[in-house]
Amino acid sequence: MARSHGRRSDQLRPVTITRNWLAHAEGSVLVEFGGTRVLCAATVESGVPRWRKGSGLGWVTAEYAMLPRATNTRSDRESVRGKIGGRTHEISRLIGRSLRACVDYKALGENSVVLDCDVLQADGGTRTAAITGAYVALADAIAWMRQRRMCPGDPLVNSVAAVSVGVVGTEPMLDLDYSEDVKAETDMNVVMTGRGDYVEVQGTAEGTPFDRTALNGLLDLAAAGCAELTRLQTEALS
Amino acid sequence: MARSHGRRSDQLRPVTITRNWLAHAEGSVLVEFGGTRVLCAATVESGVPRWRKGSGLGWVTAEYAMLPRATNTRSDRESVRGKIGGRTHEISRLIGRSLRACVDYKALGENSVVLDCDVLQADGGTRTAAITGAYVALADAIAWMRQRRMCPGDPLVNSVAAVSVGVVGTEPMLDLDYSEDVKAETDMNVVMTGRGDYVEVQGTAEGTPFDRTALNGLLDLAAAGCAELTRLQTEALS
Amino acid sequence: MARSHGRRSDQLRPVTITRNWLAHAEGSVLVEFGGTRVLCAATVESGVPRWRKGSGLGWVTAEYAMLPRATNTRSDRESVRGKIGGRTHEISRLIGRSLRACVDYKALGENSVVLDCDVLQADGGTRTAAITGAYVALADAIAWMRQRRMCPGDPLVNSVAAVSVGVVGTEPMLDLDYSEDVKAETDMNVVMTGRGDYVEVQGTAEGTPFDRTALNGLLDLAAAGCAELTRLQTEALS
Amino acid sequence: MARSHGRRSDQLRPVTITRNWLAHAEGSVLVEFGGTRVLCAATVESGVPRWRKGSGLGWVTAEYAMLPRATNTRSDRESVRGKIGGRTHEISRLIGRSLRACVDYKALGENSVVLDCDVLQADGGTRTAAITGAYVALADAIAWMRQRRMCPGDPLVNSVAAVSVGVVGTEPMLDLDYSEDVKAETDMNVVMTGRGDYVEVQGTAEGTPFDRTALNGLLDLAAAGCAELTRLQTEALS
Amino acid sequence: MARSHGRRSDQLRPVTITRNWLAHAEGSVLVEFGGTRVLCAATVESGVPRWRKGSGLGWVTAEYAMLPRATNTRSDRESVRGKIGGRTHEISRLIGRSLRACVDYKALGENSVVLDCDVLQADGGTRTAAITGAYVALADAIAWMRQRRMCPGDPLVNSVAAVSVGVVGTEPMLDLDYSEDVKAETDMNVVMTGRGDYVEVQGTAEGTPFDRTALNGLLDLAAAGCAELTRLQTEALS
Amino acid sequence: MARSHGRRSDQLRPVTITRNWLAHAEGSVLVEFGGTRVLCAATVESGVPRWRKGSGLGWVTAEYAMLPRATNTRSDRESVRGKIGGRTHEISRLIGRSLRACVDYKALGENSVVLDCDVLQADGGTRTAAITGAYVALADAIAWMRQRRMCPGDPLVNSVAAVSVGVVGTEPMLDLDYSEDVKAETDMNVVMTGRGDYVEVQGTAEGTPFDRTALNGLLDLAAAGCAELTRLQTEALS
Repeated sequence: MARSHGRRSDQLRPVTITRNWLAHAEGSVLVEFGGTRVLCAATVESGVPRWRKGSGLGWVTAEYAMLPRATNTRSDRESVRGKIGGRTHEISRLIGRSLRACVDYKALGENSVVLDCDVLQADGGTRTAAITGAYVALADAIAWMRQRRMCPGDPLVNSVAAVSVGVVGTEPMLDLDYSEDVKAETDMNVVMTGRGDYVEVQGTAEGTPFDRTALNGLLDLAAAGCAELTRLQTEALS
Repeated sequence: MARSHGRRSDQLRPVTITRNWLAHAEGSVLVEFGGTRVLCAATVESGVPRWRKGSGLGWVTAEYAMLPRATNTRSDRESVRGKIGGRTHEISRLIGRSLRACVDYKALGENSVVLDCDVLQADGGTRTAAITGAYVALADAIAWMRQRRMCPGDPLVNSVAAVSVGVVGTEPMLDLDYSEDVKAETDMNVVMTGRGDYVEVQGTAEGTPFDRTALNGLLDLAAAGCAELTRLQTEALS
Repeated sequence: MARSHGRRSDQLRPVTITRNWLAHAEGSVLVEFGGTRVLCAATVESGVPRWRKGSGLGWVTAEYAMLPRATNTRSDRESVRGKIGGRTHEISRLIGRSLRACVDYKALGENSVVLDCDVLQADGGTRTAAITGAYVALADAIAWMRQRRMCPGDPLVNSVAAVSVGVVGTEPMLDLDYSEDVKAETDMNVVMTGRGDYVEVQGTAEGTPFDRTALNGLLDLAAAGCAELTRLQTEALS
Repeated sequence: MARSHGRRSDQLRPVTITRNWLAHAEGSVLVEFGGTRVLCAATVESGVPRWRKGSGLGWVTAEYAMLPRATNTRSDRESVRGKIGGRTHEISRLIGRSLRACVDYKALGENSVVLDCDVLQADGGTRTAAITGAYVALADAIAWMRQRRMCPGDPLVNSVAAVSVGVVGTEPMLDLDYSEDVKAETDMNVVMTGRGDYVEVQGTAEGTPFDRTALNGLLDLAAAGCAELTRLQTEALS
Repeated sequence: MARSHGRRSDQLRPVTITRNWLAHAEGSVLVEFGGTRVLCAATVESGVPRWRKGSGLGWVTAEYAMLPRATNTRSDRESVRGKIGGRTHEISRLIGRSLRACVDYKALGENSVVLDCDVLQADGGTRTAAITGAYVALADAIAWMRQRRMCPGDPLVNSVAAVSVGVVGTEPMLDLDYSEDVKAETDMNVVMTGRGDYVEVQGTAEGTPFDRTALNGLLDLAAAGCAELTRLQTEALS
Repeated sequence: MARSHGRRSDQLRPVTITRNWLAHAEGSVLVEFGGTRVLCAATVESGVPRWRKGSGLGWVTAEYAMLPRATNTRSDRESVRGKIGGRTHEISRLIGRSLRACVDYKALGENSVVLDCDVLQADGGTRTAAITGAYVALADAIAWMRQRRMCPGDPLVNSVAAVSVGVVGTEPMLDLDYSEDVKAETDMNVVMTGRGDYVEVQGTAEGTPFDRTALNGLLDLAAAGCAELTRLQTEALS
């Protein structure tokens, strides 16, 4: 089976990371994984949610959403339906947890960073692109804060990148696009730090349950993919 | 008072209209009025809402929204709050009515076009930019339908463009940016056809009520602005 | 085409303004424009919304709604549907803006007035009747406050009245009733001060877009209509 | 303790029943129990809810609501809060059940009547006034249907009226107004047919629990009150 | 007609009251009336709702709900539908009012007790079982508070129990199960104190309206049933 | 660190699986993992959701919820808040996906099974207990269907069980209770089939990111735990 962009099963799609895409946000990135395009905006707010006040600790959170026509057929707006769907909730929570793995709350002080990840165009891997881009927006927002001496220390103690892997037919593949994703037997999203440790591993058997060997193969692919994404993030930030 | 982009009081900001910004939508435009950037996606759906079924007539509707960090400070998502605000409702309805002025429902047949106008970055005039861009996306979507012979006739019988005008201090000005908008005594949005007729006139005294002379001055400015926008739409579509 | 009440195209329907229709409200008016009947209640609250606290300035706001059987066929309650529709939002905002044009916030002090405009029976022009009646209720509420010395000055610096005008067939007409409204090519709502200045001009081409001459004709009709309504308000308040 | 309107403890407040208060509704009544004023509109709809289709049986339902300034202090609109409160739900259900006791579903055929009871002004006893007025609106709506030969038989097989009774201090009283209601130890709403049978008995100890003797005293008062209301309904309908 | 459990028309179903069914709650009871099984959990919270702060008085409230498969056919979750139904609201309010009849707010101090009554299995009489069980959970929660010297006095001044009665065919019956409930002409829920006074009487003619004799017969049955339930509560608490 | 129930780090808590806990449901299980108690009810519905109609395939779905006082402090009801939280959504989706891995949709025919998993008491591992119990309820519901010859074939092609594992301090542990869960650096939920394959692997670094060795250690523990749970399920079903 030929892959889009003529790539091998262990290759990422072309990745671009455009910083400062927005004029107002303290950090902003348009990240592209092939046809997937996510706008990540980092907003700095002084103060923290009520339950955290007086702790001296900061907070990082994220919200993920898709424009109605990001996908091949139009979906209704969640604002119009009056509620957020389960998938949106789940991905927002995943992005938030992933980004928090990079941050020393004490060094952040009682400040918050909100990461808004809006999918402008979707072609598979929107959550992993969002995490990868949001990290760069977060780094820029933290640099912005440090310039203004808002933080008691350096809150950025790690980096994170994320990639999807899956078994299509019987072949393990890196960074599935939409056409591969719908055919995948197994689908896994892996979030790793720049040092190569795991932050999240979420594997699901969409079709046949998978064995330990398959799991190991996918974890290997993901580790290589995340390392490459870390390199691209570093390049973008330099 | 110096205006942004060094322009005169009767000049538009730099306007760009980028067609086919999205891969999936039947028509899509990224429209920019200076720092205001709106993504307009036109979705073709065969069929019409229930109350219109069996009439032989088509339908055109619009939804407007802003990304949370389109503005200088972050606003909460309407999906998270669980309801759509009055301003969003009002602008969505305005865009829909404006676009419907271009369309012959009978020639459209029982098909619908939905225009999604999402503000990626806001610097005043988001609703007028949205209408101006959405017209181009609609034209592309209708061309797409006609190629597939979906329509019994040619549904596009007119064009529309829109611009804001206002009195800042005592001076009437065309195409206000955000910093001008907040200072304006009077604020008016005008939607006109390519032939120079009015589709919508919405004038509001934000400060002191205005007299007939001021109203006439603003209508003159708007007519010239809409004519120039019509020219840019035609250019983009050719 | 004969008009209801045997009136000419530049004539209002019979208008009645009944003050003190409610026992509890600080100001209350039952306003009738022909078969349109709106109950306007003004509530005085000491204090202002959170975002305005400490400013020394007051606030005026409005809520518009329709009883389910105000119209020819019953509509569902917005409370039962769990959300407010776009039309309701839009009209509430219009009434609020219009009334605020009469008020000096500083002279009002940190007090609020809420205008509830509930349509008991609808026959076209509900929003213009609501504005015209709400002004009288507001005047009564402010008199009530001044008697109790709640305000640092006299907050009522202007009066407002509103009327609809439209082109039915090719004829411009004042104060459309429902049967005229559904046939109108162009529909305009105009809010004017007692001194004859504009607070809001909202014109919409329901059918064919209209030209400048038509617009001017409608503005003339509206000015005469608002002047007559101002006279009736003054009479009611004396 | 002197009662309003100088009445005895076993006397109703002045009651007025004004039919045809609305132009559009098939039946409509403005009912007043002293200062309590409820607008009852009956809407005839051909067809029944989905769960009743094909049964050959009709349906009657009711919705109760209060205008925000019906009461001494303004309450938020349930449409704005986005949900209906428990009290509103409870009273709507009570009115619906009460009215259904008058109706032969088979004779009604597959038609529905919706009773909208909107409290314009509240001074105690709004639910009992609503039931008493809604019965008259229902009778008018059924007469309207019978004139048009919509019903297979005569659906109106009974009449209902309702009144509140309560123990204030130690004295049992009929038809409590608001000032009496807040002081009542026991509060009971009784719905009875024109023949003197019970449809609903809802007694609540707001303060001290009550004994059987007190209960019997209240039931006696209510029976006399409902008989008088039945007489007034008959008079209004003749 | 034979009744379930071979009981007479004036007999309760087998009743069991299991205390401390939950590890975390300050009071908890699994109450069973035949096949009806309700889990009642009492939560002690220091502090009272905002509107009661500074009064020195406590508060008691209740929430009732049913698991989706408590009944013969599955019902949708109210959390999924996004709103609470009228029946749920009504029963929650009834339970709260009933329990508050046992409590001296002053002796409770500014503390709250919330009674959660969740129906695990339903076979008629869920609200009366809930009240009867919730009283025992409340008594345990108050004992827990008194052990910790949280209350200025002894807040438990009364006990309450509740039972349903109804006329099935022409026979008055105590404690209806579901199959009897659906056939009942009249349905009454009675809440009484341990001393034999009434807290709530709610009688409804589901079919034919009932006369005073029938009402008296039902009140007699209920008094005997509540006395027996009071005995079982006392036994459980000793 | 001593574990509850005096168990080793690779030991499950005492597990009990009580079938037929409910009278009405087609399958029902009360499952207990130590102090965690989840009621799982399987409802059989003939027919499938709209998007699946006419496909000849069945459907299995799940809903998870917690009673307000399942936990140490009371949480608000999601029905009262009017929306479902992200965590609830996420777990409901996980349970549904896990159970669907056991089912041959074709053999199920156009029938649905809904699994309601309601946490009566929570002490860590509620989602894994829910999956483990729901499988048994599903098996019973399918047996019920097969007895009635509702299914074209045997839809139960696999079994699933689930367990949590985590690193507490530096020690990998099986089946964390609540006190261990809050201290865990890494938290992983693993769903496996009776044949030892993976259906879901969800690992999260709550504190320090984890390396491949730690991940492997946790996967080993989980495999042994799931095998033991499979044995207990088989025992319960025989």
